[in-house]
Amino acid sequence: MDPFTPVAIERPLLRAIDQTLLPGEERWLVLKDLDSVCEAVSTLRVRGAPLLGIVGAAGVAVAAEISGTEMGELRRIAERIGSVRPTAVELATGAEGAVIAAEKLDAPQRLDALWAHAQEYAARRVAEDRALGEFGAALLPDGAAVLTHCNAGALATGGIGTALGVVQVAWEQGRLSRCFATETRPLLQGARLTAWELARAGIPATLLPDTAAASLIASGQVQAVVTGADRIAANGDSANKIGTYGLASVAARHGVPFYIAAPRTTFDPGCASGAEIPIEYRNGREVGGFGSQRWSPDGIDAYNPAFDVTPAELIAAIVTEAGVVSPPFEEGIRAILRAP
Amino acid sequence: MDPFTPVAIERPLLRAIDQTLLPGEERWLVLKDLDSVCEAVSTLRVRGAPLLGIVGAAGVAVAAEISGTEMGELRRIAERIGSVRPTAVELATGAEGAVIAAEKLDAPQRLDALWAHAQEYAARRVAEDRALGEFGAALLPDGAAVLTHCNAGALATGGIGTALGVVQVAWEQGRLSRCFATETRPLLQGARLTAWELARAGIPATLLPDTAAASLIASGQVQAVVTGADRIAANGDSANKIGTYGLASVAARHGVPFYIAAPRTTFDPGCASGAEIPIEYRNGREVGGFGSQRWSPDGIDAYNPAFDVTPAELIAAIVTEAGVVSPPFEEGIRAILRAP
Repeated sequence: MDPFTPVAIERPLLRAIDQTLLPGEERWLVLKDLDSVCEAVSTLRVRGAPLLGIVGAAGVAVAAEISGTEMGELRRIAERIGSVRPTAVELATGAEGAVIAAEKLDAPQRLDALWAHAQEYAARRVAEDRALGEFGAALLPDGAAVLTHCNAGALATGGIGTALGVVQVAWEQGRLSRCFATETRPLLQGARLTAWELARAGIPATLLPDTAAASLIASGQVQAVVTGADRIAANGDSANKIGTYGLASVAARHGVPFYIAAPRTTFDPGCASGAEIPIEYRNGREVGGFGSQRWSPDGIDAYNPAFDVTPAELIAAIVTEAGVVSPPFEEGIRAILRAP
Repeated sequence: MDPFTPVAIERPLLRAIDQTLLPGEERWLVLKDLDSVCEAVSTLRVRGAPLLGIVGAAGVAVAAEISGTEMGELRRIAERIGSVRPTAVELATGAEGAVIAAEKLDAPQRLDALWAHAQEYAARRVAEDRALGEFGAALLPDGAAVLTHCNAGALATGGIGTALGVVQVAWEQGRLSRCFATETRPLLQGARLTAWELARAGIPATLLPDTAAASLIASGQVQAVVTGADRIAANGDSANKIGTYGLASVAARHGVPFYIAAPRTTFDPGCASGAEIPIEYRNGREVGGFGSQRWSPDGIDAYNPAFDVTPAELIAAIVTEAGVVSPPFEEGIRAILRAP
């Protein structure tokens, strides 16, 4: 099956599949100005930390087509894009990288450079996901069944995915028996997106309610839990989709290794530990219903953080495109960030 | 606010609120034969382990109105009712209790006795829930916020509830600050039923996705986790709604006490440990959607156990209508089952 790419960089615009409509409908958005880029990101029509890096880089080029390439303006654009989802560090670094690529050049050359930069950024994702997937697959025992959470696949990265890239490579190598995927309330990225990607790739897949993950791990049916991450602190504490911490806690109780699969751009050495990672709280209407359907009485309060932090002590290893980081993470992370 | 009762025993039939339609609609079912009783139980229109005891007892009376009171027939009725949801031990013991009440009597007196037995059974629930609630509330610190899972309220028991009975009594005593409730996928009993009961009682309530429970516990915002149970083994291992085990695991990591609140009828001394508790697996269509809404691609496999087992080592205490059982549970459970 052809690799699937959820964004297409087509100067002067960016096209992206609307992930909120999957799996029912494959509709492509046309992002042709700064507002439409920011709207697509804030509504999670485009989501997934590494993919947001591409969108951050390409979003600056899209906006510069309209605003021009004066450096102060480019910096304001990058800042606005980065602020839409503050926990997703790659959104901001993707946009800032575009600004850095432009500022070496004179004004007339900057627009071409912004588009070339976005294309290179996207191509690098494809190569790096493949490398990450191979490092991760090598950690799994033969015939492993893997549990994953949320969506860390092609839809999230623009390559073969991070956590799902590990699954994909293990499957290609004939070493994977099955992938279990949580529904991932409240936005159901597992039920909608991971299930769609696994079905598309022909990988044997089982969906479970988030509530059933502890039972599944206790039953001995999975040999590893693999998720992506949105931001990783200098000590290895990892922020990822809400629910990850609970899975990691139960996996530790049962001696099932819990792996983070994330590109090196996810590391934020400026955060000493998870306590410093800013957590986004989302609209309470996402709880007690889905889409236009409501299950709960109106007016009830909601607790709806988008992310939780898994402490480093629960993480067996962090898999990157440059290799595997094992505990102690502080040293290992410093070393992998220095690697080519 | 008047206490709410989800079933009404009105010879020759049983009326019950259809819990699958809450909170949107309050529709009462008329259960007038064995088939309608079994259908209401299997579809979870009537659910909650202690309430199923009332339905088991009253269901035998309803069926005997049609079939007559020959003892072999009564035994077949009780057996069929008990088999509809094998993990809910009280459904079977409620039905068997009715048979025992009848078999002491001559045939002409049995029908009256079955109805009187069902009424007494229901009245006992009300008194016992209140007693349980008072024992449980005494365990909470002043101003406590409590996290609960699924629905263990009036809708589940016919009294003030077990876990929610503890919450209700603490609230009446001015000692509760807030009740947090999980949505409880896949059937959303927390989002639909617990949220409805808490709103009806005027108790400050916050709903959260199941995925957010670990984050909530880690944040220090709850001082106790309290759930019901469907079956408790002789060693204290407790089967309850899927997701309970994950909550208990995370609570233990953070030193937050996890309490089971359940009437003594929930104990099954015939099960030495949780490994012997039969677990019901439900239709995979409950995963990846709700009601008529589908989120997932068709045809994906599902893992959908209705219950998980929380090992006794994670349980701080088991609260019953006869008092609180603390570890070591094996002795404590034997003692509480002998108590008056």
